[in-house]
Amino acid sequence: MDAYITLDIGGTNIRCALFLNDQDPIDIKKISTVHKNQSPFERIISVIKEIWPAGNSVKGISAAVPGSVNVNAGIVLLAPNISGWKNIDFGKILSNQFKVPVFVNNDARLAAIGEWKRGAGIGHENLLYFTISTGLGGGAIVHGKPLEGSVGIATESGHITIDDNGPICGCGKRGHLEAFSAGTGIENYVHEEIVKGVKTIIKSTPAVRASEIATAAKNGDQLAISAFNRAGYYLGIGIANYLHIFNPSCVIFGGGVSLSGDLLMNPFRQSLKDHVLNPTYLENLEIKMAELGDNVGLIGAFEYLKEKLEI
Amino acid sequence: MDAYITLDIGGTNIRCALFLNDQDPIDIKKISTVHKNQSPFERIISVIKEIWPAGNSVKGISAAVPGSVNVNAGIVLLAPNISGWKNIDFGKILSNQFKVPVFVNNDARLAAIGEWKRGAGIGHENLLYFTISTGLGGGAIVHGKPLEGSVGIATESGHITIDDNGPICGCGKRGHLEAFSAGTGIENYVHEEIVKGVKTIIKSTPAVRASEIATAAKNGDQLAISAFNRAGYYLGIGIANYLHIFNPSCVIFGGGVSLSGDLLMNPFRQSLKDHVLNPTYLENLEIKMAELGDNVGLIGAFEYLKEKLEI
Repeated sequence: MDAYITLDIGGTNIRCALFLNDQDPIDIKKISTVHKNQSPFERIISVIKEIWPAGNSVKGISAAVPGSVNVNAGIVLLAPNISGWKNIDFGKILSNQFKVPVFVNNDARLAAIGEWKRGAGIGHENLLYFTISTGLGGGAIVHGKPLEGSVGIATESGHITIDDNGPICGCGKRGHLEAFSAGTGIENYVHEEIVKGVKTIIKSTPAVRASEIATAAKNGDQLAISAFNRAGYYLGIGIANYLHIFNPSCVIFGGGVSLSGDLLMNPFRQSLKDHVLNPTYLENLEIKMAELGDNVGLIGAFEYLKEKLEI
Repeated sequence: MDAYITLDIGGTNIRCALFLNDQDPIDIKKISTVHKNQSPFERIISVIKEIWPAGNSVKGISAAVPGSVNVNAGIVLLAPNISGWKNIDFGKILSNQFKVPVFVNNDARLAAIGEWKRGAGIGHENLLYFTISTGLGGGAIVHGKPLEGSVGIATESGHITIDDNGPICGCGKRGHLEAFSAGTGIENYVHEEIVKGVKTIIKSTPAVRASEIATAAKNGDQLAISAFNRAGYYLGIGIANYLHIFNPSCVIFGGGVSLSGDLLMNPFRQSLKDHVLNPTYLENLEIKMAELGDNVGLIGAFEYLKEKLEI
């Protein structure tokens, strides 16, 4: 039976799945990305060898990478959370090693494909997916096709300036959507307010985490509540921009911070309503939470692989 | 011989063209949009009757409209510069009148299609077009297909917030790209600075025009120069956003304000370089001026009509 291997590569863990058909993976292995005796690339090769099936013919490998990818050339241009990953000839190295076709793409784009084909976005031709965790990534389906751009570095969705005088983003630029509405942005805001002397039940600083802030907010802490109000307000501005650009029928949110529920979503929905050009953008729009959970990257990479192998 | 009629409808003039093949129009008629005895719609019907060819079989009509269009239903949702045009059943009214298929779309999107098929964008699969005049409109070609969105109201390109505390836009929202970098934004800025007491050779206020400001800038007027520097700076922020979203291989500028040359383009290019995430976005990017001139809407509407009629 034909087999397919997919990878979801993160700064902390590498997950690797084996698929035999168009359903769920029959095996998933997880290993740490960082290891004292192996490079991340050696870790990837070892986990593929581990999952490689005896007696099955592997038809291809695809990988979800947390960074910018030249999808045509199979080159990882930059993956900031993986040490040394700049201009890595990912596709070529792995295909030389395993003698099968290898495809590599951005993890948020593959997650978008996963949710579109098998999750919250089924049936939509125009769909936006945003993953909000430490950073803010995204993917877009436009008229039934994933938006990659000319090189493959489209939908860097967190990196749009929404306030030129705003806080510094993880990328070094100022006032990006990510700097306001993703985890690090929320944490930085709370830290700055504590330094200013604002009272709060939140203890740890500067190592405060967005999840702790969410807990504090649920316990009525005003600073924590205002941090999520602010994140939701700017998320509404950013998503209004995206509605004006793409006019999608579905917007899907994934990632840890999106699980904060009403704390983020109530101010977001109000801000979106306030910032959208006219109600038509909202009338036929579904706003949904992602459905595929932790396997979204592996499943999206499999759907992408099927598309590439034309199966 | 088969014939095709296209319209480019503006707040001031309606232009109507007759095409017989895939080259240039064989006839163009121009009439004013506003008339004391006729509604804009009656003006449109009369100019179509005037251009209608004897002995030729008209196969279809397409129209470029300055506003939001539900392209699937052929309904003009809102065209702010044409009196009374809200939820106009454009396609149905014209097709009942002339008994041929009628297609209607946003004028900037059709201009983008025109430049893509016949102008500065030939050969590009991922292309963005921006028209900068009184307002700022746009269109996008994504993987070889015009981006319309689920209803048809995608690429309202001037209406993205780039500074939440910025000036009021023509649409009533705050800090949109259009409010900084289009004609009215430039004019409003100069007017406000004059009111503040800034010295300038620009005389007329509040009726100052962007073209007068450009002339003053070319004569060394510091306020006028700073107005274009500011417009170009924010245009760089906006286009950097669009590069991160679409990763196009070509960006085309049309419209009167884009003809200001280096005055706008020098600060724009510097700002774009400063705001782009990494140089890869610029390495394979062509930035070009539109090539089709005043006929871009008529030609784009014809290319769109051919696509719709599958000829």
